[in-house]
Amino acid sequence: MSAIEGLVEEFGRLPGIGRKTAQRLTYFLLKVPPEQARRLARAIDRVVDEVRPCSECGNLSADDPCELCRSPRRDPRSICVVEEASDIGAIESSGQFRGRYHVLGGHLSPLDGIGPEELNMASLVRRLREGVEELIIATNPSVEGEATAAYLHRLATPLEGLRVTRLARGLPVGGDLEYADGVTIAEAFSGRREM
Amino acid sequence: MSAIEGLVEEFGRLPGIGRKTAQRLTYFLLKVPPEQARRLARAIDRVVDEVRPCSECGNLSADDPCELCRSPRRDPRSICVVEEASDIGAIESSGQFRGRYHVLGGHLSPLDGIGPEELNMASLVRRLREGVEELIIATNPSVEGEATAAYLHRLATPLEGLRVTRLARGLPVGGDLEYADGVTIAEAFSGRREM
Repeated sequence: MSAIEGLVEEFGRLPGIGRKTAQRLTYFLLKVPPEQARRLARAIDRVVDEVRPCSECGNLSADDPCELCRSPRRDPRSICVVEEASDIGAIESSGQFRGRYHVLGGHLSPLDGIGPEELNMASLVRRLREGVEELIIATNPSVEGEATAAYLHRLATPLEGLRVTRLARGLPVGGDLEYADGVTIAEAFSGRREM
Repeated sequence: MSAIEGLVEEFGRLPGIGRKTAQRLTYFLLKVPPEQARRLARAIDRVVDEVRPCSECGNLSADDPCELCRSPRRDPRSICVVEEASDIGAIESSGQFRGRYHVLGGHLSPLDGIGPEELNMASLVRRLREGVEELIIATNPSVEGEATAAYLHRLATPLEGLRVTRLARGLPVGGDLEYADGVTIAEAFSGRREM
């Protein structure tokens, strides 16, 4: 296989990148200065070499424990549980949470053979016993995410003095009521608040 | 800058890849086996190391002359001139052309300081003198592409026994007349053919 064809194929393995886009990216890298193309290759090597799951929370980081687990400014009494490390960035960008995280590494999916043992559940229970006061469940608002949330809720219920919450469902800000699906509108009704 | 942030930034430099997509690609590479991520880095290194413009036609290839210039099955009496090497793949996929190519490396754009000297025009004229019978102009159907085509036409007119053609304009196959722009419909009318 030619070098060009090889790179088109590798780009095409990335999610959401079809063959046409892979070709465009390949020819783009052939047009830019070689240093810029090599910078991308080096950046890939660097994440593969350096980044590992944090042994405490499962966040992906070059440090272990990760910067969020080590920070003295993060409140250890509150843990927000997410499916993937990539969800942390989205929550951090909201600026609304100053506690710690816990990354499950996916969601329950019995058909794919993903049970509680395949996710970072045991280490979560251990952490919850160490003076945590609130568990915020931030799994995805999907069928699997909801099932995982329900499982976590049952898991946490026996723990005394622990408040278990989950992120609100409702209309996305900036969205259009007309285009919201019925389930979302139903959640928005049942979760309505006093103005 | 962290390794993750560094890769997000490098992905974000690629055309059509915004910050969100760059993050998604980065976390994807952190989820796949390290070998797969490294294969992408190696494929980038390989194109930077191996691929060069063909000294004959300007096509990008690991060989010089490129495989299209060396192939005895390609008719040297017909040359199709394109703006970029990436256009060759699109034309090859049509299966309609069995001649040779010539890559200009862009289009005329006086405002950006791109004149005939900045494009592979001189080598095209030299090639056209070597028994070429047809020059097919396949520059983009854009303002700059049309200006470049007009310039090429003037350049080729003094050459005796050379037929100069350009690709037809008209309705794209599979398209919808309702959504075609007026200029395209006008071209489709003026270029209409007997059924």
